[in-house]
Amino acid sequence: MEVALRRGFINPSYEIYGGVSGFYDYAPLGAALKKNLEDIWRRYFVIEEGFFEISSPTISPEEVFVASGHVSNFVDPLVSCEKCGSAFRADHLISSAVDVKTDGLSFEELSRLIREHNLRCPDCGGELGEVYSYNLMFKTYIGPGKKKVGYLRPETAQGIFILFPRLYSFYRKKLPFGVAQIGKAYRNEISPRQGLIRLREFTQAEVEIFIDPRDKRHPNFERYAGERLRLLPQDREEEVELTAREAVEQGIVKHEFLCYYLVHTQRFLLELGIPYERLRFRQHLREEMAHYAADCWDAEVRTERFGWIEVVGIADRTDYDLKAHERHSKVELRAFRQFEKPEKRRRLVLEPKMAKLGPEFKRLAKKIATTLRELPESEVRRFAERGELELSIAEERVLITGEHAEVKEVEEVITGEKFVPHVVEPSFGIDRIFYCVLESAYYQREGRNVLRLSPELAPVKAAVFPLLTREELVKVAREVFEEVKRAGILAIFDASDSIGRRYARVDEIGVPFAVTIDFDTLEDETVTIRERDSAQQVRVPKSEVAGILRDLIEGRRRFAELG
Amino acid sequence: MEVALRRGFINPSYEIYGGVSGFYDYAPLGAALKKNLEDIWRRYFVIEEGFFEISSPTISPEEVFVASGHVSNFVDPLVSCEKCGSAFRADHLISSAVDVKTDGLSFEELSRLIREHNLRCPDCGGELGEVYSYNLMFKTYIGPGKKKVGYLRPETAQGIFILFPRLYSFYRKKLPFGVAQIGKAYRNEISPRQGLIRLREFTQAEVEIFIDPRDKRHPNFERYAGERLRLLPQDREEEVELTAREAVEQGIVKHEFLCYYLVHTQRFLLELGIPYERLRFRQHLREEMAHYAADCWDAEVRTERFGWIEVVGIADRTDYDLKAHERHSKVELRAFRQFEKPEKRRRLVLEPKMAKLGPEFKRLAKKIATTLRELPESEVRRFAERGELELSIAEERVLITGEHAEVKEVEEVITGEKFVPHVVEPSFGIDRIFYCVLESAYYQREGRNVLRLSPELAPVKAAVFPLLTREELVKVAREVFEEVKRAGILAIFDASDSIGRRYARVDEIGVPFAVTIDFDTLEDETVTIRERDSAQQVRVPKSEVAGILRDLIEGRRRFAELG
Repeated sequence: MEVALRRGFINPSYEIYGGVSGFYDYAPLGAALKKNLEDIWRRYFVIEEGFFEISSPTISPEEVFVASGHVSNFVDPLVSCEKCGSAFRADHLISSAVDVKTDGLSFEELSRLIREHNLRCPDCGGELGEVYSYNLMFKTYIGPGKKKVGYLRPETAQGIFILFPRLYSFYRKKLPFGVAQIGKAYRNEISPRQGLIRLREFTQAEVEIFIDPRDKRHPNFERYAGERLRLLPQDREEEVELTAREAVEQGIVKHEFLCYYLVHTQRFLLELGIPYERLRFRQHLREEMAHYAADCWDAEVRTERFGWIEVVGIADRTDYDLKAHERHSKVELRAFRQFEKPEKRRRLVLEPKMAKLGPEFKRLAKKIATTLRELPESEVRRFAERGELELSIAEERVLITGEHAEVKEVEEVITGEKFVPHVVEPSFGIDRIFYCVLESAYYQREGRNVLRLSPELAPVKAAVFPLLTREELVKVAREVFEEVKRAGILAIFDASDSIGRRYARVDEIGVPFAVTIDFDTLEDETVTIRERDSAQQVRVPKSEVAGILRDLIEGRRRFAELG
Repeated sequence: MEVALRRGFINPSYEIYGGVSGFYDYAPLGAALKKNLEDIWRRYFVIEEGFFEISSPTISPEEVFVASGHVSNFVDPLVSCEKCGSAFRADHLISSAVDVKTDGLSFEELSRLIREHNLRCPDCGGELGEVYSYNLMFKTYIGPGKKKVGYLRPETAQGIFILFPRLYSFYRKKLPFGVAQIGKAYRNEISPRQGLIRLREFTQAEVEIFIDPRDKRHPNFERYAGERLRLLPQDREEEVELTAREAVEQGIVKHEFLCYYLVHTQRFLLELGIPYERLRFRQHLREEMAHYAADCWDAEVRTERFGWIEVVGIADRTDYDLKAHERHSKVELRAFRQFEKPEKRRRLVLEPKMAKLGPEFKRLAKKIATTLRELPESEVRRFAERGELELSIAEERVLITGEHAEVKEVEEVITGEKFVPHVVEPSFGIDRIFYCVLESAYYQREGRNVLRLSPELAPVKAAVFPLLTREELVKVAREVFEEVKRAGILAIFDASDSIGRRYARVDEIGVPFAVTIDFDTLEDETVTIRERDSAQQVRVPKSEVAGILRDLIEGRRRFAELG
């Protein structure tokens, strides 16, 4: 963290104004590293999966989060001091003072515990009030006045769910399909303290994969069936190591679709340099499961600083969200399932008796007849039981009895049916992964700091150095630098201090390759390329250096092959 | 726009909840195009310029925007109906009803005009109240309660300014240097109507370049001196076409630094496919200049739908922002200017008389002496004039007269001085540029829609088709598709409808290359690649297709060379 702060990776925000907890800046090197990390994520979860990304607004109108359940459920229990007004998480306050489990307790039970143990304000010793519900969404108003409430989204996922009809058409109405989103999400924490691990504004990368609930097999499961995972199921004390196939066959991971994304996530995290030994998948306990999830596995990384931390959540959200939005918006959010062969079905319908309807209802008769014919089967059944039915036609109430319509059974041939898809969601906390990547990459070599970041991750891909500050060397080095930048490579130029100190400086920020222009360059037009990890150097023609760097960075050539 | 909506580029947000104006979704193809556009921007304004990008939070505490002036100046004049409560932009309401110029009028003058012309509510005909100030920032609260006000940033720039001390160190205390940021910015418009052109939540890409105000030449100006620009200066009626050098020499563009970024911006926009004929740079009129700008040129694009629209603002913000934050935060936001040779300066100082101070002030004497020695020269001058001075030492008021201290003139050798840098800022509205890119790329060929997007911009880089839905062709086509995706190329697979209709479908969304697997493939292991713009096809070996596509997309090979 000292290196990360000093060398320009991250920075607590608003320092010159005394700081505001829960906010961090990505400083120059951090922003570049974060972008590279996101691009690798895109390669895994967008390009390779054949999915697409969308980008929806961070501000949503209230309706969205009323439907999703966040207005009622995305809350923490809060308690305020009656004297000084400071607010605290009630459960944290209790468990730090008394040895008692607070998970799953109601607000009333928490209030009772505070009274029973006579807990007082940690700041001023004042009396504490009743525990109340604090919503973690940032609230604002859209447009002038206070008519239209908006919230900053607590997750990017909802932006995908409410776009379902458009997305289903885009994918030409075929399941399964996945839609990804990388973007800001917000959580108005009460008093966040853990740096990048608990932010009020953070970056999420989420994929929502819409599947047919009747078939939770994954078409490419075989590809990953033999890969090993370290799993901590909810009913066990210890981790077990199993192949993906074993995990599904033993019923530990509920279905192939979830398990496929456990493996895919693991491959992604390994590529970022997080070691297998520090990685595990922990199943959520029933009481910690989010309000929308049927099953959820967290990818956790064991960090030096914070212990095990959750970096990815892989959940089966079932049809919870689509159903909720369907109910609130009255817009159908369904897919169509084609039967393998057309099915015959018997169905009850109402047949209007026009001879009676016409004279009695006159200009309304036609509308009534149409409404009766289109009545859902459940309504027809109710009519069959009760013998009557009230309709609202053109704002008039109309009573229909056996005189006006007759129940009939018809046989229909249907080719398929509509259903609400289920959703499997891998959800990544980019800031936490960023932290783990830095921690995993850091080591010391001969007392000096080195960041062992892959060329794809490294914020600066190459450094260009003149051996000495002699004008003839600097001039050639500048030319090489310009050429490297023109090849689209993010590079730095450095001419001050000894060459050894310059190598040390770029090792510390993870630059994988350093190009040095020396006196031989002036003679034979060659330069040296030094590889960070091996500290080895090779000479290559000056004219080819930009192309060689590109090949090395993009993995088309390996450094060892240059020699 | 019809194509953009139908084919999944953009989408008005929250459709299923009836929509909220001022918000748009980037649908699958749009999100990919927008990301490519941003990456090209990064190539121009980050990598090639040798700058770095940062990423700061979108929520800022109030202090930041009090200092920047946005709390007082980022306002619209609003007027509400006393009867129905609807709110309107006062100036728009007046100018749509009466032929009168409202630019630069005060709120009182606008109120007077409404009364004079007896203007009434356009919605209900009710009486209108007084014109009042409406702040365009979205407001929220950080943490529980209403103690800490936060705003969603109206521009990304402030996040860079307040990080100045960190950034100056990162660039090893050398000017000029530039810092970029791409991110969301917000503007709580009263009733936005123009789609992507006026959003409440939009994406900005800004660069803040910190320069020494004594030297506004640009080190690489020569490179661009001969390039032509179409300029509309504030004092002219018509555009003039000049080279960059002529524009600076004639004093039309104030200095090289601004002019360099006019050219650099033009090159960027041309690369995106916006034609030179539809591009101009318009200087802001004095009254429309933002509160922080000394000079500002807008890059404008002439669109079919909206006429001339501003897409980039290139401003000389002087030292306005850094000085404002320095004043409010009490943190020094300065750079150091080394003199070419050390300078001797005479300076007035106060020399404390300890013999008097000691007995009179006892334990405070030492502190007083230190304070007097460190007094800024302006204070010493005031003391010299008035003969006395009041200090506050350890919360006591102390009166210092000629008895306690003596004014002396000393000679100092100084090697440099501190100063507040000036800032040149190219600021890009990504959503508007996105719109212009789509409009410029769209044309009709033989009655069919084509998007002529460069391979770098195109959201989908390649399509893979089996000629027919025969199993043997589909199988090989799937293999090719997997290989193309593994090469990191965003590709789609399509097996339905005739090959002609499939080509038309991918032309309409701008896919530059389509690979078709036909019966010859089964014989000789070759496939065809079709280029969108020429509609020409060439056969290439199946095993090389992923590599060839990558070369074509990244510009290492041209399609014409394949034949």
